[in-house]
Amino acid sequence: MADASLFPTRRLRGTPFTNRVQAAGVSGYTVYNHMLLPTVFKSLEEDYAHLKQFAQIWDVSAERQVQIEGPDAHRLACMISARDLRNAQPGRCYYAPITNQNGGLLNDPVALCIAPDKYWFSIADGDLLLWVAGLAQGLNLNVTVTEPDVSPLAIQGPMAEDLLVDVFGPEIRDIKFFRFTAFPFMGRILNIARSGWSKQGGFEIYLDDSTLGGTLWDAITAKGNAYNLRAGCPNLIERLESGLLGYGNDMTSENTPLEIGLDKYCALDNDAEFIGKQALLRQRDSGITKKLMGLTLAGPPMSPVSMPLQCKAAQSNVGIVTSGVYSPDLNDNIAFAMLDITAAELGNTITVETMTGSVDAKVCEIADFEARLKAR
Amino acid sequence: MADASLFPTRRLRGTPFTNRVQAAGVSGYTVYNHMLLPTVFKSLEEDYAHLKQFAQIWDVSAERQVQIEGPDAHRLACMISARDLRNAQPGRCYYAPITNQNGGLLNDPVALCIAPDKYWFSIADGDLLLWVAGLAQGLNLNVTVTEPDVSPLAIQGPMAEDLLVDVFGPEIRDIKFFRFTAFPFMGRILNIARSGWSKQGGFEIYLDDSTLGGTLWDAITAKGNAYNLRAGCPNLIERLESGLLGYGNDMTSENTPLEIGLDKYCALDNDAEFIGKQALLRQRDSGITKKLMGLTLAGPPMSPVSMPLQCKAAQSNVGIVTSGVYSPDLNDNIAFAMLDITAAELGNTITVETMTGSVDAKVCEIADFEARLKAR
Repeated sequence: MADASLFPTRRLRGTPFTNRVQAAGVSGYTVYNHMLLPTVFKSLEEDYAHLKQFAQIWDVSAERQVQIEGPDAHRLACMISARDLRNAQPGRCYYAPITNQNGGLLNDPVALCIAPDKYWFSIADGDLLLWVAGLAQGLNLNVTVTEPDVSPLAIQGPMAEDLLVDVFGPEIRDIKFFRFTAFPFMGRILNIARSGWSKQGGFEIYLDDSTLGGTLWDAITAKGNAYNLRAGCPNLIERLESGLLGYGNDMTSENTPLEIGLDKYCALDNDAEFIGKQALLRQRDSGITKKLMGLTLAGPPMSPVSMPLQCKAAQSNVGIVTSGVYSPDLNDNIAFAMLDITAAELGNTITVETMTGSVDAKVCEIADFEARLKAR
Repeated sequence: MADASLFPTRRLRGTPFTNRVQAAGVSGYTVYNHMLLPTVFKSLEEDYAHLKQFAQIWDVSAERQVQIEGPDAHRLACMISARDLRNAQPGRCYYAPITNQNGGLLNDPVALCIAPDKYWFSIADGDLLLWVAGLAQGLNLNVTVTEPDVSPLAIQGPMAEDLLVDVFGPEIRDIKFFRFTAFPFMGRILNIARSGWSKQGGFEIYLDDSTLGGTLWDAITAKGNAYNLRAGCPNLIERLESGLLGYGNDMTSENTPLEIGLDKYCALDNDAEFIGKQALLRQRDSGITKKLMGLTLAGPPMSPVSMPLQCKAAQSNVGIVTSGVYSPDLNDNIAFAMLDITAAELGNTITVETMTGSVDAKVCEIADFEARLKAR
C-alpha cells in the first residue's frame, strides 16, 4: 500500500534542516508529529551499512519537545511518567513511558531534566502536549506546557564522537550516556546529549533556534570528510537489530509497558505515584495475556513490513507482526510481533501471513538479534 | 520540498478502504491523524472538475472520532467547545472550535450529538483525544474518552444525493444539512450525515465496523455508473474556492477563532462557559492584531503552496500565505493569508514571496471566491 507520493502542505511541517536534507538527496519521508522525518536516502541497506561504519547526520526535528515549566513542573512530570522522576537531576535524560489511567501507553519519550522546575519530554509520534496540557488545565496546576522552538539534530555512528570533538571540542568526550551538557554555538547555548535512535553510538544536539538550522548543519558537515559523514536517518534495519521499539508501530495505547517489556522503566515497587500505576499493578498481579517478542521468519529476504501481518498457530490468530525487515548482517528476516502469551514461548514456531504467502516463524527474545550480532 | 515518497508503516495507519483506494489509482496521500488520507487521484485539476459535475467517493477515515460517553459527557463536551452545545440535540452536527485557556485553537471538529450522554467529535489533524482525556482525568469526570472503530466515507458532488438514494433509499433526501439519520446496512446501523469537506453537496457515512469497509465501498460503487462516480478526495482547489479552512494549514494553536473569522461559532455573548472564553473576550475587547484573509495573486498559474510564503508591505513582513493554488474556474491564483491587521484591509495590495519570485497580491474576503463563482 501507499506507494503514492506525499503531497506537502504547511500542516506537514518542514524543519530547520529540510533544505539541507533535500540537497543531500533524501528519497523517502515519513510524517512524525506533523513534521517531515526522513526514512531513506540511498537505500535502506546502503544507509544501514554506512551507519554502522562511519558517521551520519540526522534531521530528527520531528522529535518535538513538550516543555513543562513552572512551580508545579516537577510534580506534573512525576505524575505523567511511569519512570520514577522524583530524584531527576538536571543534565540527565530518562527514558520515560507515559501511561493513561488504564496503563495504556500514550508515548515513550526521553525526559530531559533541564532544571528542577523545567523538563523537556522529547516525544515519539503523538501529540503528548495535549495530554499534559489537558491534565494541567484540569488540575489547575501552576505550569506552562508548550512546544518550544527546539529541533534535535542527531549525529550517529561509530565516528560520531570524533566528528563532534572536531566541531565542539574535546569536552564532547566527557558526556556520559544519557547525559547532556551545554555547548556554545553562534551565541546560543545548545544542549548536547549522548543519545539517539540507534545503537551505533552518537549524540543529539538540541538546536533551540530554527534560524540557525543551516548554519549548524553546515558547521558539522564542513568537518565531515574525515569521518565519511553523510546525511542519514533512523534506519529500520538497524532499529530492529538493536531492539529499539517504535511508538505507533510496536506499541499503541492498546498496550501497556508490561506487554512490551518496559517493566524496568516503571516505578511499580516503590511509593512513586503516577497515572496508570494501579492498573499496571493489577495487570502484573493477574499476568499479561500478550507480549511483544522477536521473530525470525523463513523464506527469501523480505521487504519492510508496511502493515500488521497476521500470526497464526493451529489455524488460530495468535497476534500480529508490528515491524519486520530483512537483516543483511544476520542474513535473516527479523521482526517484532505482539503475540498471545500462549504463543509467545521462546523457540515456538508459528505461521505469519506475509504479502507473498504464509511462512514459518520462530519466536525469540527481542534482545537476541543484538546478541547474535555481537557473537558473530 | 518533499518530493520524496512516503514510506509506509503500521504507524501510518491504513483504513478500511485503503485497498479500494489503491485499486482506484490514488496518486498522492497525506498523513492525517496518523492515517493515510488521499489527496490526488488523476490530477488536482481533473479531480476538481469532476467533483463539481458528478459524484465522488472519498475515504475520509482519517477524520477520526473522539467519543465522549457517560454521565459527565454533556458537561465535558460543553466545557471544551467554543460552540454552545448546551442545547445540543441528538441527530445534529455542530461545527465546534476547540480552544485552550489562551483561546488558541486545538482543533475545529464537527461535533455529533449521538445521544444526550454520548458525543462524537469528528476531528481535524491533531490528537484531540489526548486533550479531552487529560481534562477528564484531571477533573476526575465520570466519562470514557475513546477513539471508536468509526471511519467516515464521504459521497460528495452534485450527484451524491441521487446516488445514495439508489443505495439507501429515498429517506436520504430527508436528511437536512448538518443532520444525521441512522440507516441499516449489513446488520449494522450507520449514521449518515448531510455534510462533508466540500461545498458541492453530499454526505458522510460513519462506518462503525472496519471489517465492512470493502463491502460498503462496493455497494456504493456498484450503483455508481449512472452518476459517473469515481474515487476522489478533499480537493485543494475546491476547498479554497469554497472558503473551507484546514487546521494546521490556515490555523494553529497560535491562532484564535476571532483571528480566523470563526466568531459566530463562539458563545461569547451568553452565559455558556468553555475553556478559553475569558481569553477570547479579552481579545475581542482589545481587538485582534492579525486576521486570516483571502488573496488573489498576480502572475502565471501557481502550483499548490507547500510551505508558508512571506507577505510584505513596504519591505516589512506583514504575514504569511497559509494555503494557495490556481483556480481554473476563477482563472486566478487564490490563497488564504494570515495578515497583520494593518495589512488586512480589503483591496490592499501586498507582495508575496513565492518560490518563483515576488508577486503582487490583493487582499479580499475569503468568501469572495465563492461569491465570484456564483456570480459567473
